[in-house]
Amino acid sequence: MRVDGRDYRTVWMEGSVVRMINQPLIPHRFEIVDMPTHVETAQAISRMVVRGAGAIGASAGFGMAQVVLEAPEDEFEGYIQRGYETLAGTRPTAQDLFYAIDRVRGAARGKLPADAREIACRQAQAIADEGALAGENIGLHGAELLSDGDVVLTHCNAGWLAFVDWGSALAPMYAAVRQGKKVSVIADETRPRCQGSRLTAWELAQEGVPATIIADNAAGYFLAHGEISMCIVGADRIARNGDIANKIGTYEKAVLAARHDVPFYVAAPLSTFDMACVCGADIPIEHRGEDEVLYAYGWTDEGAWGRVRVSPEGAHAANPAFDVTPAELLAGIITEKGIIRACEADITKLFAG
Amino acid sequence: MRVDGRDYRTVWMEGSVVRMINQPLIPHRFEIVDMPTHVETAQAISRMVVRGAGAIGASAGFGMAQVVLEAPEDEFEGYIQRGYETLAGTRPTAQDLFYAIDRVRGAARGKLPADAREIACRQAQAIADEGALAGENIGLHGAELLSDGDVVLTHCNAGWLAFVDWGSALAPMYAAVRQGKKVSVIADETRPRCQGSRLTAWELAQEGVPATIIADNAAGYFLAHGEISMCIVGADRIARNGDIANKIGTYEKAVLAARHDVPFYVAAPLSTFDMACVCGADIPIEHRGEDEVLYAYGWTDEGAWGRVRVSPEGAHAANPAFDVTPAELLAGIITEKGIIRACEADITKLFAG
Repeated sequence: MRVDGRDYRTVWMEGSVVRMINQPLIPHRFEIVDMPTHVETAQAISRMVVRGAGAIGASAGFGMAQVVLEAPEDEFEGYIQRGYETLAGTRPTAQDLFYAIDRVRGAARGKLPADAREIACRQAQAIADEGALAGENIGLHGAELLSDGDVVLTHCNAGWLAFVDWGSALAPMYAAVRQGKKVSVIADETRPRCQGSRLTAWELAQEGVPATIIADNAAGYFLAHGEISMCIVGADRIARNGDIANKIGTYEKAVLAARHDVPFYVAAPLSTFDMACVCGADIPIEHRGEDEVLYAYGWTDEGAWGRVRVSPEGAHAANPAFDVTPAELLAGIITEKGIIRACEADITKLFAG
Repeated sequence: MRVDGRDYRTVWMEGSVVRMINQPLIPHRFEIVDMPTHVETAQAISRMVVRGAGAIGASAGFGMAQVVLEAPEDEFEGYIQRGYETLAGTRPTAQDLFYAIDRVRGAARGKLPADAREIACRQAQAIADEGALAGENIGLHGAELLSDGDVVLTHCNAGWLAFVDWGSALAPMYAAVRQGKKVSVIADETRPRCQGSRLTAWELAQEGVPATIIADNAAGYFLAHGEISMCIVGADRIARNGDIANKIGTYEKAVLAARHDVPFYVAAPLSTFDMACVCGADIPIEHRGEDEVLYAYGWTDEGAWGRVRVSPEGAHAANPAFDVTPAELLAGIITEKGIIRACEADITKLFAG
């Protein structure tokens, strides 16, 4: 997607170098960082220079290709095994990471070194391209829902920064605006980590999609005043029955949208569906440290990363990072294969077809 | 209420000096500031050293008493008129302010200077005492709703800092805990101004009421998980039909509470009811500047008041400061005269009785 008028992906490979957007600096500064070897790529993943399931997967795939490129012929398999373990240890709960490193390594296995290197690079590139294509197709399907003048409420950041390109929840707006439709976005700031005000607002501005940030508390006000045409959010996991887990607050907005008959869509690629998960109650919810709530983090007036305390010394906070939105509140799920109802019948068909 | 184990009101008068808690420093530092003349008292109101309807009213009443004390006998009425105008110009939309200065001035009108000074001081003290008593009675009525183990969700700050003493939404918990009941509070941080994490959490800690701060986004999660027994919030204005206006986000939490059959109460003194206002749609909603959303304000690690930017340069925000919660979502209104249903019949009876 566009940054300062140029097209970028979140991560890509040039020769043996993995290049990626330094995401913690956004929106304050746009910077590309180079990872010359798989060791630096692994560090970038573990230090969250790159974040978001799709972007982590693609980065890990490229990192695995670097391992195969670097492996000396006299200890080829041993080096690959150690490199695999390094990458696997970076974000051990990220499903997309294992998918990518297993696929690259599997494709190269048993080949002569020269062939293995070529195949590994091709596979890693294919993973990134497939991720980008999935986002683009989510965008095309989702854009069919949008008309001139529509105002879309979104929560957190399920934009292209979390994927390789296009994203999930924001892809329909990107596609619609490129088709010439006049749509705009209201972005919840998404406390405590403010991915909405920081990342979503930045992405949208770069693509020329008009965006307004609101406090999470104000979504109900704008829904009640008829100022929102539709909600589109991403998902961290989708259960077989259509229940979804997403960033904390998603459930609140879905309940409010239902009260005001505003359609609430989830946009996600097939890789987000977990068919082993029967319903939302089976999805484990991460609880994070209380400092995220007791402080607010951002850029100081001097341009440094800093924080301010918004609570008394000694206060306590609870900080569930995700919540579950039941399928009954969803108007549908926008996937790269089309828009389906949030129900087991449609989800099963999606994977059968 | 208690601060560091000692009892305080938000504002009081000693001789001719008005003393008040310096509220913008809370929770970082607890400091009493002295206003030797009505000019300093007026400045304290306009600069928001004191905030909250009840606390502003009491401060203005004391300020008006200072005017009468200061007025030289040779131009008694002229000085009083100018002092009245100074105080009236501080927060021109604050209904309680005009109630207080009109009452103090009215009581002193036409009296000899010595009598006028005594009457003015007595009236100002009565206004403060009546406000404190109203809060205490709201607390006693509200405490009847609470049982051991109850967890109360509240939003924003309708505690004693906003009044003279006791407060409205927090008064029931103060009363219950003093009665020996074991209740605790979950406080929404209440972006964008964080009155919940800053003021409510501080007040509760000082009174020994266990409190947990959450991001506003997490209220739905805790309601859905059955972790909240009841919600109690304050109100900025209550219409004749029981619709209420309160801090932005109140409506969201009320809708979520209704979905999970958790009773949602409003606590407010009679002075908050506006019988000239037919319903919530008639209540004007203030929209504030966008910097409150684009930044977060608080105390830096160095102990200074500061801010961090949580949004891109050039981004825009919308910032409605209040929303309207319809009467149908309220379990009742806790007043100093008892708990009533949020409906025109009960509200009319309240003022008739």
